[in-house]
Amino acid sequence: MKNPTWTVFTRALWTDTDLGIELDVSRMGVDGPSMELVRAPMNAALLAMQKLEQGAIGNPDEDRMVGHYWLRAPDLAPEAEISQAIRETLSRIREFAARVHTGDQRPPEGDRFTKFLLIGIGGSALGPQFVSHALSDRNHKLEGFFIDNTDPDGMDQVLDRLDGDLNRTLTIVVSKSGGTRETRNGMLEVKAAYERAGLDFGRQAVAVTGVASALEELAREARFIEVFPMWDWVGGRTSELSAVGLLPAALQGIDVNDLLDGAKEMDKRTRLDRLENNPAALLAASWYTAGNGRGERNMVVLPYKDRLLLLGRYLQQLVMESLGKEKDRAGNVVRQGLAVYGNKGSTDQHAYIQQLRDGPDDFFVTFIEVQKDRRGPSPSVEIDVTAGDYLMGFLLGTRQALSEKGRRSLTLTLAEISPRSLGALIALYERAVGLYAELVDINAYHQPGVEAGKKAAEDVLSLQRRALSVLREPRGRKWRIADLAKELSAGEEMETLFKTLEHAAANCDHGVLVSRGRGPDQHQYYMS
Amino acid sequence: MKNPTWTVFTRALWTDTDLGIELDVSRMGVDGPSMELVRAPMNAALLAMQKLEQGAIGNPDEDRMVGHYWLRAPDLAPEAEISQAIRETLSRIREFAARVHTGDQRPPEGDRFTKFLLIGIGGSALGPQFVSHALSDRNHKLEGFFIDNTDPDGMDQVLDRLDGDLNRTLTIVVSKSGGTRETRNGMLEVKAAYERAGLDFGRQAVAVTGVASALEELAREARFIEVFPMWDWVGGRTSELSAVGLLPAALQGIDVNDLLDGAKEMDKRTRLDRLENNPAALLAASWYTAGNGRGERNMVVLPYKDRLLLLGRYLQQLVMESLGKEKDRAGNVVRQGLAVYGNKGSTDQHAYIQQLRDGPDDFFVTFIEVQKDRRGPSPSVEIDVTAGDYLMGFLLGTRQALSEKGRRSLTLTLAEISPRSLGALIALYERAVGLYAELVDINAYHQPGVEAGKKAAEDVLSLQRRALSVLREPRGRKWRIADLAKELSAGEEMETLFKTLEHAAANCDHGVLVSRGRGPDQHQYYMS
Repeated sequence: MKNPTWTVFTRALWTDTDLGIELDVSRMGVDGPSMELVRAPMNAALLAMQKLEQGAIGNPDEDRMVGHYWLRAPDLAPEAEISQAIRETLSRIREFAARVHTGDQRPPEGDRFTKFLLIGIGGSALGPQFVSHALSDRNHKLEGFFIDNTDPDGMDQVLDRLDGDLNRTLTIVVSKSGGTRETRNGMLEVKAAYERAGLDFGRQAVAVTGVASALEELAREARFIEVFPMWDWVGGRTSELSAVGLLPAALQGIDVNDLLDGAKEMDKRTRLDRLENNPAALLAASWYTAGNGRGERNMVVLPYKDRLLLLGRYLQQLVMESLGKEKDRAGNVVRQGLAVYGNKGSTDQHAYIQQLRDGPDDFFVTFIEVQKDRRGPSPSVEIDVTAGDYLMGFLLGTRQALSEKGRRSLTLTLAEISPRSLGALIALYERAVGLYAELVDINAYHQPGVEAGKKAAEDVLSLQRRALSVLREPRGRKWRIADLAKELSAGEEMETLFKTLEHAAANCDHGVLVSRGRGPDQHQYYMS
Repeated sequence: MKNPTWTVFTRALWTDTDLGIELDVSRMGVDGPSMELVRAPMNAALLAMQKLEQGAIGNPDEDRMVGHYWLRAPDLAPEAEISQAIRETLSRIREFAARVHTGDQRPPEGDRFTKFLLIGIGGSALGPQFVSHALSDRNHKLEGFFIDNTDPDGMDQVLDRLDGDLNRTLTIVVSKSGGTRETRNGMLEVKAAYERAGLDFGRQAVAVTGVASALEELAREARFIEVFPMWDWVGGRTSELSAVGLLPAALQGIDVNDLLDGAKEMDKRTRLDRLENNPAALLAASWYTAGNGRGERNMVVLPYKDRLLLLGRYLQQLVMESLGKEKDRAGNVVRQGLAVYGNKGSTDQHAYIQQLRDGPDDFFVTFIEVQKDRRGPSPSVEIDVTAGDYLMGFLLGTRQALSEKGRRSLTLTLAEISPRSLGALIALYERAVGLYAELVDINAYHQPGVEAGKKAAEDVLSLQRRALSVLREPRGRKWRIADLAKELSAGEEMETLFKTLEHAAANCDHGVLVSRGRGPDQHQYYMS
């Protein structure tokens, strides 16, 4: 992992001048024999991806096709119905955004929509947030706001910022299943805020959701302006180029055709081809080699560009939820995964480059360089040096300091941040994740591990309801945790009961009070 | 790592009702024999911390005392001069903020300062950003903005948001050494923006910097309103409770006495004491046990509270820069470290809980619970359930789903987010990091690994300057990389030269143009 020679560097460099993207994996140790080791499995992976794109059931656990590649090339979808649905939805999105922009689609109590508030979480929020932030522009059409959690105080903070402007705010509720609790809660709180402002929520709301979902039904009942579809062949974490991401982007004023075109062009460059000519294959092969096929090195994502601050979080989801799997496709326990973290350079250098250079060799860095510094010219901060030159200098300097210590890194260069380059970046990583999953033989498109926590959360709330019933009847009666647990036949759930009642007592909503004893055993909970 | 029994839980729980903080490490595997293994080393660590607080040279490489604990208890400083400097600075900060708030300290061209713009990076920005965000309030005194990088486009974005308000914006330039390039560049760009707006930058600027630094000199020359000191016995990553953090906090309207009091009270609870009674020792012991004393498990930080979104980044710096060290204090190569990542719950559940539950067992989660949901009452989203109940439910449910799979976690509970609880939280982690460093016998207070990258960056810019000189004389002459490298006797630096010239050609500042050939070898660079 020494600095590569010029010959090694130029030979390894993947360049696409049309997309304005370069990929340099010469510091990842994939040249030479390790490249040969991965060549045959990669060819098999590329073939598998071809089948996936042609409509194979890539997600057998859920009996679903995996079709996010069709979103930017509807002609390639395996069924005419799907192609048509993609095209129709895109037209509807563009027309709706145009109507909003011209003011033909206006709020009942305002002259024009000037802001949107997207309520979603995970795959229904991270992509939209990433793209909105990366392409934010003072000349936006609508300004974007996001509620991506079920934190009451967090919702209040967002609603505070919209205070006085709700009559000009379009709310977008995004939930594929239509049953995501965080999103439902956010919607209910936001609806109440509209109502407090004397506004009809439904007349200022649109939904993006699966066909026949609970949210779709609710949207029809509440007379939402529009409902845009999600399809079961698009996973949440790969839904940025479906209505989930395109609708808010179009409303903000981002050219969604360019986003789609960038992705489509990158798809073309990442299908069957020699490893060396395929940037997604180069990425996947590098990750595979660096982590010994077991994710043994964390992926540190360092874009040297403030606009890409959320890229690390976006990739955290895309990579970890796709690749973090207990079993391979044959059912063997393999505990695969690939941990991702990072915010931005050079800022993060001042946070943890110390550990990267001197600490455990348990990571590789993804440096992301953006060549264009800003719209106009830059002042000099020293003779012949701008602030942007420094940004580049820190990237190159840090990379070299890591190479000297044998630490791995790869460098992805974008000519500029644009809808097209972002579309290409998203497609590049989607494909790389798919290929890596083939290399380690896992299903990248399901998430069997997330249900247990949701189920356990519902159990907690169910226990809370039962506890509140007991405390309510008769009021005034004081309960120790042990006695309450006995009453509820919840002897195994005493800690949960304690946490629940402490939380209830810290808030005024349920009327729970506490007389504190010397410890959790001795506290007594009651309603007055 | 099964769910602990009620008895195990209540016995392990550390509670402080005055500070409103609980710590539960019962899911970290430190009960029983592993606790005993760490008891003697921890007692030694606590003694070492006592010496540190009494003024020992805790950072021998730089021959410096480590005094961030004195900031909240100036009486404990080993020299009367230090105590007095701390008290005086605090008084000056409070008085300055009060003058700004009343309008007695007003900008030359505006009636009142309504915003501040902090320019800093790393230890000079992350703490202020974390606290500003965590305690943001629509009734703030001044609204805070931050430039924490040398990205020209990022600076433009912040300046766009301040457009029209610069005459009411107070700029705070923070650099301990006074020579941090990113901060210097940010200051120069911001100064130019003030001047474009017809404003005198110096009359709207204050500095926080080390005594006799380059920034201090510049501040005096440019007639900054005030200069507040940093001291060599406070490290950047532990400077939140020095002028670095207190000044912006006070300006925003945060009660800095409460911040300091929370830290002071937490310090009292984390000095010499039995392991079980000392939350910082419990934390450090848990980390040590979980990672086998070698950081083998990543620290995932999941605060279930939007306001704490930046805590993960703050701890990333505090923990990784302190603990990521190549050598122990005897000079043996140990490559210590402890990787930190995480944003917020329940949002992150939707991003990567899949990997945490099903993937490699290479982490432990720090769950952070905040009991108080919001200022006022919450509407019900279901019978007897609020959005905040869901937030708690997801925390407990996820924690249980991880425990079932043998994954470790600890839970830190705050009654509420307040200046006092944040001060305590900061002090808790500062102490835990110090104790952990003692356990693994490293210097937590230096950062020898960060210089190499900065030095290499300066070399890159120096090469750029030389290359520009060659291209400038004579203009029009075209250079291939190989020829230019030969001219500059920089045969080892061909890649750097290529990256530098590509970056220059992507921007208009240096007048560099390129005729593209078939590859990097064949491109020709010139000035017209």
